[in-house]
Amino acid sequence: MPAFVPRHDQAQREAEALEFLHLYHAETGQPGLRQRQAALYRDGHLTLSTQELTFGARVAWRNSTRCVGRLPWQTLRVNDLRHVTDHDGVFTHLLAHLRGALNGGRILPTMSVFGPGVRIHNDQLIRYAGYRQPDGTVTGDPQNAALTEYLRGLGWPGGPGTPFDVLPLAIEAAGQVQLFELPPDAVHEVRIEHPTCPAIAGLGLRWHALPVISNMTLEVGGESFQAAPFNGWYLQTEIAARNLTDERRYDLLPAVAAALGLDTRTRRSLWVDRALLELNVAVLHSFDRDGVRIADHHAVTRQFRHFETLEARAGRSVRGRWSWLLPPMAPATTPLWDRAYDDTEVRPNFTAQQPAWQAARPGVCPFHH
Amino acid sequence: MPAFVPRHDQAQREAEALEFLHLYHAETGQPGLRQRQAALYRDGHLTLSTQELTFGARVAWRNSTRCVGRLPWQTLRVNDLRHVTDHDGVFTHLLAHLRGALNGGRILPTMSVFGPGVRIHNDQLIRYAGYRQPDGTVTGDPQNAALTEYLRGLGWPGGPGTPFDVLPLAIEAAGQVQLFELPPDAVHEVRIEHPTCPAIAGLGLRWHALPVISNMTLEVGGESFQAAPFNGWYLQTEIAARNLTDERRYDLLPAVAAALGLDTRTRRSLWVDRALLELNVAVLHSFDRDGVRIADHHAVTRQFRHFETLEARAGRSVRGRWSWLLPPMAPATTPLWDRAYDDTEVRPNFTAQQPAWQAARPGVCPFHH
Repeated sequence: MPAFVPRHDQAQREAEALEFLHLYHAETGQPGLRQRQAALYRDGHLTLSTQELTFGARVAWRNSTRCVGRLPWQTLRVNDLRHVTDHDGVFTHLLAHLRGALNGGRILPTMSVFGPGVRIHNDQLIRYAGYRQPDGTVTGDPQNAALTEYLRGLGWPGGPGTPFDVLPLAIEAAGQVQLFELPPDAVHEVRIEHPTCPAIAGLGLRWHALPVISNMTLEVGGESFQAAPFNGWYLQTEIAARNLTDERRYDLLPAVAAALGLDTRTRRSLWVDRALLELNVAVLHSFDRDGVRIADHHAVTRQFRHFETLEARAGRSVRGRWSWLLPPMAPATTPLWDRAYDDTEVRPNFTAQQPAWQAARPGVCPFHH
Repeated sequence: MPAFVPRHDQAQREAEALEFLHLYHAETGQPGLRQRQAALYRDGHLTLSTQELTFGARVAWRNSTRCVGRLPWQTLRVNDLRHVTDHDGVFTHLLAHLRGALNGGRILPTMSVFGPGVRIHNDQLIRYAGYRQPDGTVTGDPQNAALTEYLRGLGWPGGPGTPFDVLPLAIEAAGQVQLFELPPDAVHEVRIEHPTCPAIAGLGLRWHALPVISNMTLEVGGESFQAAPFNGWYLQTEIAARNLTDERRYDLLPAVAAALGLDTRTRRSLWVDRALLELNVAVLHSFDRDGVRIADHHAVTRQFRHFETLEARAGRSVRGRWSWLLPPMAPATTPLWDRAYDDTEVRPNFTAQQPAWQAARPGVCPFHH
């Protein structure tokens, strides 16, 4: 029996599998639908071929209502690693994922699908520590404070204490969790500087090149893959208009404004908007300087409209959550502002996982313990 | 019989009236609920007192899901002009409304409620003409091109042909439409200049001080008032991030960028965002220079959160449409970004009217024609 708890009842699982087989054979034009249906009826579930898994993962991206960067969904590379179920094997392949996806800066959208019983407790492969201080402040990324404490509880001694300490990975396999430090050469980072304001570089800001989401379950054909980390490339607003600027994250707009010499006595001067703009300029400039692929909110929203056109031509409708698609910079200047989207979810897709440390023995078969 | 078509069936109308009476007496603490109920049962509808109408208009503002500026809802001044049903009377009172609401720049939220058969065909009292040119372009505000053509069809000879020609009012009364030119002293305008970039003033931009919405029906206690123009004061993003900048409106970001000397070869330079920022700075600066009240998106969103707090203290929930409340400038830096609102509509409220020139004899009793 699989070492993870099936999340659907059997009838729903078979219905999803059947629907997926029809989708796969209709879209790919591959023969063999009847044989695959027969296998489904015989086994009660699908054992996906690598081709089916790859197709399903790409369609899961295509169906992701919160993602504005779906245009290149067909380019997703899928590493079929369902045979890998041990800690060292998972870690080795994650390092290969990080290096292969970075591709010297020309980032390749990539997913690695691991076998049953594997789970990555970090929500992204690369995360910066958030160290809670006695005075209530956080050094680093406050969003990761709970994760940081969890990892310390597992035995991580902590990093040097900078605002950008990379957290180790907590990999679960066969019911055991082990920690793995990411070697520096696996974590490509970009130093943030502004093209014309040297004081911005003086803030010592940096961000990692690759966003690799590792806490979502890939749902394909009635099967659930809890360890299926995947990456695209960043949209600059994610870094410059959220991660570095949200008051619950790095909250750096006051520091950026100080570096720019802005008068911050009243928000009516729009110093917040000006600091935000210059930080976005700085992030785009710095990634471009280093040859690391990154989208901007003007191009990606135009690409999304093109994605909609291509989908319509293929006879499919695009679902979306407007509030997630909308960029947090000058949204009314983008072609998504006056659009409306159906936000119903269809599969294949990605579903959210509870943080592993909040669930009661997550991912572990109750019959084996 | 009233010279407008009742929009609800009788049972719904009486239910709304009853609900309104309970709301009015519960919130104001006024005595007399039983007598008003008796009057409702006797007449089949409510003839609202001026106090009831004023309360209802204020609550209609409080209930407006699309308005982010609802904090001062209790300050709304209501001119009870239900006895005014002739063209000249309506026009005279509209001029008084414009002058009284401007209040020398310290704008007062104001509503004027006219009698049956009155309708104002303009969607706002002050609108700039949009003249379609033979080459397909529009001089002025493209959003008002259809209104402009309608008014010319009614006999308006057209204005001088500037981008900011104020349209005449088309006032309907007793089934007849008449045009009225607004005198210049009734239309207070603000010249737009930038505090540090003189080239912005060279663009010759201006905007009017008062947004007076005149195409919504006020629904109170089962009664519908089709001519009930109302104003608050502007939020600078309405002018600087939508009216002057939307591609379907004045589309001025390229001209602003040229005035600023920006490199517009690629949007990746964020020249759009920079031109948008400077235009917002210019509008705030210019209104402040002239002492004309205007909100900024940072203050108004904080005031909205305060409004929510006050409403919660009063035991009421706040409804809203997040996509309308969200400002189109740096929305993630405002306290509305991570909020969610119930968007169901309750009454008293304002409901949209079809443009008068698109409806078949709107607002005119079919039994009189």
